[in-house]
Amino acid sequence: MNDASPLYPVLERIDANLDAALERLMDLLRIPSISTDPAHAEDCRRAAEWLVADLESFGVAASARATPGHPMVVGHGGEGPRRLVFYGHYDVQPVDPIELWHRDPFDPAIEETPEGKVIRARGASDDKGQLMTFVEAARAWVEVHGALPAAVTFHFEGEEESGSPSLVPFLEANADELRGDLALICDTGLFDNDTPAITTMLRGLLGEEVTISAADRDLHSGMYGGIARNPIHVLSRIIAALHDDEGRITVPGFYEGVSELPAAIREQWQALGFDARKFLGAVGLSEPAGERDRMPLEMIWSRPSCDVNGISGGYEGPGFKTVLPARASAKLSFRLVGEQDPHKIRRNFRAMVQGMLPADCTAEFADHGASPACQMPADDPAFEAARRALGAEWPKPAAFIGCGGSIPIAGYFQSILGMNSLLIGFGRDDDNIHSPNEKYHLSSFHRGARSWARVLHALSMEPR
Amino acid sequence: MNDASPLYPVLERIDANLDAALERLMDLLRIPSISTDPAHAEDCRRAAEWLVADLESFGVAASARATPGHPMVVGHGGEGPRRLVFYGHYDVQPVDPIELWHRDPFDPAIEETPEGKVIRARGASDDKGQLMTFVEAARAWVEVHGALPAAVTFHFEGEEESGSPSLVPFLEANADELRGDLALICDTGLFDNDTPAITTMLRGLLGEEVTISAADRDLHSGMYGGIARNPIHVLSRIIAALHDDEGRITVPGFYEGVSELPAAIREQWQALGFDARKFLGAVGLSEPAGERDRMPLEMIWSRPSCDVNGISGGYEGPGFKTVLPARASAKLSFRLVGEQDPHKIRRNFRAMVQGMLPADCTAEFADHGASPACQMPADDPAFEAARRALGAEWPKPAAFIGCGGSIPIAGYFQSILGMNSLLIGFGRDDDNIHSPNEKYHLSSFHRGARSWARVLHALSMEPR
Repeated sequence: MNDASPLYPVLERIDANLDAALERLMDLLRIPSISTDPAHAEDCRRAAEWLVADLESFGVAASARATPGHPMVVGHGGEGPRRLVFYGHYDVQPVDPIELWHRDPFDPAIEETPEGKVIRARGASDDKGQLMTFVEAARAWVEVHGALPAAVTFHFEGEEESGSPSLVPFLEANADELRGDLALICDTGLFDNDTPAITTMLRGLLGEEVTISAADRDLHSGMYGGIARNPIHVLSRIIAALHDDEGRITVPGFYEGVSELPAAIREQWQALGFDARKFLGAVGLSEPAGERDRMPLEMIWSRPSCDVNGISGGYEGPGFKTVLPARASAKLSFRLVGEQDPHKIRRNFRAMVQGMLPADCTAEFADHGASPACQMPADDPAFEAARRALGAEWPKPAAFIGCGGSIPIAGYFQSILGMNSLLIGFGRDDDNIHSPNEKYHLSSFHRGARSWARVLHALSMEPR
Repeated sequence: MNDASPLYPVLERIDANLDAALERLMDLLRIPSISTDPAHAEDCRRAAEWLVADLESFGVAASARATPGHPMVVGHGGEGPRRLVFYGHYDVQPVDPIELWHRDPFDPAIEETPEGKVIRARGASDDKGQLMTFVEAARAWVEVHGALPAAVTFHFEGEEESGSPSLVPFLEANADELRGDLALICDTGLFDNDTPAITTMLRGLLGEEVTISAADRDLHSGMYGGIARNPIHVLSRIIAALHDDEGRITVPGFYEGVSELPAAIREQWQALGFDARKFLGAVGLSEPAGERDRMPLEMIWSRPSCDVNGISGGYEGPGFKTVLPARASAKLSFRLVGEQDPHKIRRNFRAMVQGMLPADCTAEFADHGASPACQMPADDPAFEAARRALGAEWPKPAAFIGCGGSIPIAGYFQSILGMNSLLIGFGRDDDNIHSPNEKYHLSSFHRGARSWARVLHALSMEPR
């Protein structure tokens, strides 16, 4: 970049107008747009209208679109051969337990902390603060150059924290309007405080519940112990058999569609200097417990996993009861990667369980959802351009990383609109999203806006 | 027995006075002596006093002895070289759910059923009806012969259904008074409607709770799945390892002290014609699930067992939550036989668990009690005499049988007083003890009293 670059004055503008940008964010944070609570439906509507007005204030033609739930905000601005779609969400999590907050969650303030200034409020990080980093970058482009550097569709959802019930129908009904060449999503985090990241691998999720039944009633373990089948024992044997001694999952065909990491990504991950001991140490653990032959970042980003999330059976209260229970159940989740087929894995898991049942036992299954893994084309030049642009803003180079959890919107954009997503965010692990005392670092907000200005510039320069 | 036997007129007396005996039982059943409910403390006291008065009515010197809980009734009557101690309990279980009773549980009545007449009331079987079988036999002896055929101590407890908190201190404080040559306990059942039984093998019980902890907090299975240790998996592996493929328990040293069944007992058990398919079929099972090389009655009476009675960990509510839990726990019970040492087994179990823990896991244990198995000397001539006496009353010969559960009083009599027990009872499996609509067959009551008259006679004839 040289002084003649159109980016430079945009970055200067963002710096000069930071206080005004913060005031705008504070305004939005004051609206308690808790989507899951019907009592806050009106607040969700207000937040949507606030965003419409803010987009229109710098020339984006925007409106709040009714859904069976909370409104979607959609706006269009700019021109150019590449059409970008920015997604964020304006709804926030509930604030309970409210007594653990040290201030009103909807009375935002800048606070000094040992790690620098933070914006303290519900939604400061997830996702109002993140969403506004892009809006401020877009505003600065318009204010400096009179226009956005590309055609940009703004799409803000108001139900992300309550399961997005209206999202899929809305995407399907408005596919042509909402489809672009590439989505930009700001709802993820930095790799660490100095290292930005583009999330290109998101694990899928398969949820299963299995209930093993034996006798048709609870039995007395004195009268029947030693002769009656105990479903807790049967369930335990099944769970124990799900992993082999190397930590590999034993469901037949489970690893079909799991690829090895590309060399370029492996190098980036190694360069991140991920400290597994520190990562695990923060939660009281010391040793990676996954597949023995995998590096820790693979375990959580690019390898599939299987965990029992809950188990239940017999007497669980205080004290003791000599019951021999009629049933026992477990909730399990499989995190999926690459091309793993969740439906095939569900079938194979169920067949494996059925095959392990002894006489007199039956298994019932409940389907708790299935979404395949989501993989972005890190080798697409636009992705590499965005990665370099991000690296120019932050102390350390940006990396393409994985995400152990799911980000459903990225999957919907792929499956419904055929659109990949650049997942870039500036949250920190300790932002307390979904918890009391949520905060967003001022540096995340400021550098975040500058980062988007750079990414917009890079993408506008990149031939489509 | 010939007509000159002193037993004959006693049996006739029992037959002739059955209606009066039933009236007495009804009187006792009308007192709602629910020991676990403090609101019924006065009723427990009334029941104790009713029994004192009833014993005194036929010349037994009796009194209600205060304890920190409900009173113990103790009475002494008769003379002879052999001193017998009869034990029963006058307290009853609560009646909830009361709406499932078809009549007031404390308004007893004789009802006609397809299986004959029954006495319907809470406590009809457990244990007021059973207790009174002995009292009526004793009364008949006194009324016919002016005296009991042996020295008999009557010992009625009022806290059996609420954990017997006062029992051990009372036995210890009154050991000389309460100790006899042999205890008679009427709180068990028939083998089947035609076959009386003397329970000579009672399994012991070892209660353990183990909690496996890994991370110091619940984790998100997306972020940590594949790298963090899951304590549910660890616990499942431990439980799965407790039995081998032959159904044997793998705790080191577990079978030390377990003997093979004596040939005479094995023959009696084979003669019982126990139908395991029917026994299991009644609760929706079909195949014995215990040690492969054992006959079904061994599995429940003379072989030790291990059951998980409850398991708990992670999210157990409706729906799904992708938590990777910090801990998981299980309550386990071991049923013990022969000379198995519960304390050694507890130590070995805990060491086995500790030895199976992977890195970052800890195990905490809770002690839920330990009592060794209780074995009566079936080869003692008094036991054989009682068995023959019982067989003379019922359609089929009596058998020495086992009991899968524990009967703590028999253990206390052995350990505190050095006294064995003849466990003889006339309950049926479907008496609904501890449940709504409890009943006791009139034939159990009538033949029960006649049975005790015979046993008293047999024991008084048997040289000490």
